[in-house]
Amino acid sequence: MAMVIDCHGHFTTAPKTLHAWRRKQLDTMNDPANAPHKTDLIITDDEIRAAVEAGQLKLQKERGGDLTLFSPIAGQMAHHLGNEQTSLVWAEVCNDLIHRVCHLFPYNFVGVCQLPQSPGAPPAHCIPELRRCVEELGFVGCNLNPDPSGGYWQDPPLTDRVWYPLYEEMVRLDVPAMVHVSSSCNPCFHGTGAHYINGDTTAFMQLLLADLFKDFPTLRFVIPHGGGAVPYHWGRYRGLSLETRQRPLEPLLDNVFFDTCVYHEPGIRFLTQVIPAANILFGSEMIGAVKGRDPNTGEYFDDTKRYLDACSHLSTEERHKIFEANTRRVYPRLDMLLKRRARVEATISV
Amino acid sequence: MAMVIDCHGHFTTAPKTLHAWRRKQLDTMNDPANAPHKTDLIITDDEIRAAVEAGQLKLQKERGGDLTLFSPIAGQMAHHLGNEQTSLVWAEVCNDLIHRVCHLFPYNFVGVCQLPQSPGAPPAHCIPELRRCVEELGFVGCNLNPDPSGGYWQDPPLTDRVWYPLYEEMVRLDVPAMVHVSSSCNPCFHGTGAHYINGDTTAFMQLLLADLFKDFPTLRFVIPHGGGAVPYHWGRYRGLSLETRQRPLEPLLDNVFFDTCVYHEPGIRFLTQVIPAANILFGSEMIGAVKGRDPNTGEYFDDTKRYLDACSHLSTEERHKIFEANTRRVYPRLDMLLKRRARVEATISV
Repeated sequence: MAMVIDCHGHFTTAPKTLHAWRRKQLDTMNDPANAPHKTDLIITDDEIRAAVEAGQLKLQKERGGDLTLFSPIAGQMAHHLGNEQTSLVWAEVCNDLIHRVCHLFPYNFVGVCQLPQSPGAPPAHCIPELRRCVEELGFVGCNLNPDPSGGYWQDPPLTDRVWYPLYEEMVRLDVPAMVHVSSSCNPCFHGTGAHYINGDTTAFMQLLLADLFKDFPTLRFVIPHGGGAVPYHWGRYRGLSLETRQRPLEPLLDNVFFDTCVYHEPGIRFLTQVIPAANILFGSEMIGAVKGRDPNTGEYFDDTKRYLDACSHLSTEERHKIFEANTRRVYPRLDMLLKRRARVEATISV
Repeated sequence: MAMVIDCHGHFTTAPKTLHAWRRKQLDTMNDPANAPHKTDLIITDDEIRAAVEAGQLKLQKERGGDLTLFSPIAGQMAHHLGNEQTSLVWAEVCNDLIHRVCHLFPYNFVGVCQLPQSPGAPPAHCIPELRRCVEELGFVGCNLNPDPSGGYWQDPPLTDRVWYPLYEEMVRLDVPAMVHVSSSCNPCFHGTGAHYINGDTTAFMQLLLADLFKDFPTLRFVIPHGGGAVPYHWGRYRGLSLETRQRPLEPLLDNVFFDTCVYHEPGIRFLTQVIPAANILFGSEMIGAVKGRDPNTGEYFDDTKRYLDACSHLSTEERHKIFEANTRRVYPRLDMLLKRRARVEATISV
């Protein structure tokens, strides 16, 4: 049966005790004796159920979704705060919490992990946590922050060799990364209104300029928020690729995908007319950047499935790609999980 | 008679002696005794004619344009290089050169000035050069760099009060600013592929969050490159405005305008369907970011008039707004100049 898989959801409704723990962690950054231990964070299963059932799960059902790739709150990754150790413990705490959500609602949520990045720290240091999340917790992808400095862009581009060990591990595990910045501590950049979109645009242009996918032919990136500014400026990027690299842009689409977090119907229609259906993954980032309803329609801005449903130019096959097949292809561990489940269910029903 | 006014052109074909002079200026930054004087830059009228006639003027005519708002090379403003004095002298040199182009081709080019911004320097220090360009050289607008640091975004947002004295002068002179970054010295950001587009998106979000136009009801900004990512994410910005400021986004369009530097037909069609025609100013930034031809069509990527011509949904009145009326309204000194000329011509023909 056809599924509707949302490739982009964060646990934005996490219980407040999580945020209190984080505050204490940051407050005691230079005072290890008083630092909170991971076990100091007490969140009951009932609290998790309440947070999800009143939030993402409710909306998932109301909107006709089946499953969401679920990761820690992007804006709270805040890799620029604290040091490498701070980021590691915080990533473990957040990923463990996602694991519990997925364990409680295995049919509705599958995990995507936060990485313990830190400004200036080698991305290779993220490998153990990535491995733990994928091999022990059953996660199917990761979120990769192209700017751990939080809006000052002081780490090397994503195509720098400093990232290669992490990419090698992603390839080995066969997991993609969603390229997703965190909050901005730069007063020039509003988080969800500027830094997020700029991060997407910036990452794409870095990929355009380099030969990363010659070195990693099976590495895959999802650029969220509809690809930032990229589809709107597709002609600019086609021209820049021809001019700066003497090659067409299109082969980049073997490795780069866009989600559908574009919060109005004309934008989604445009995206699906300019970018091949094979490169578009349904996503809503609900509950996230824009929580309200459009006063003109009474509907939620981030109900992106509604916009896709209204795109009459999409064929049944293209819809199937966008809502299910592409995400299963880009996240093969999700596909394996779903196939395994289908086999188990077939056995039970026999 | 209807005109086609391109609101966005830079003197990218300026003679090489200009660049040599600039290099010498930067090389002697800490060696004032050997610094080049402005009068050391020798460019003849014939050199200017050759540079323009083989470049922007040729393409303007070929593409059916009448007049271009012409400013110094955006990527060469490079406010992050040198110090405040460096930027001042460089702005004077570049603006004087634009003035000469406009003097040689008064019917084809009207000047827009570069400002002598410098990281951390009060924008008020730009007032004398703005005044000189407008009142003495007859320029009709300015380019305002929202990030004089060249990709590190270390100056305050455009809505900070530090910018207010400059805005007061813009209002007094009745000139708008095109918000245009310069080159990027941050290896994360490609100039025309990331920094330019990010600058547009960032500036718009700064304006969305603040009350700048309450303080300056007649201040006007043109956001170039089709508004960066903004029209594509119009639903996101509508939602963010309602959520963060409890007000609709649309009144911002009293003061904010977008050009048409979007280099493919679907993008231009989308822009003109989402943003009211009253807020769209024809622009091409030719010869600029993308110089080549689209191998699929054989046409120049930056021939944006062709894309607009193909937009059958635009009425004659909307086309008139986009190609002429809006630019005359946003740049009233241009309108005055054109009316004055028309009167003179009427007198002569009588």
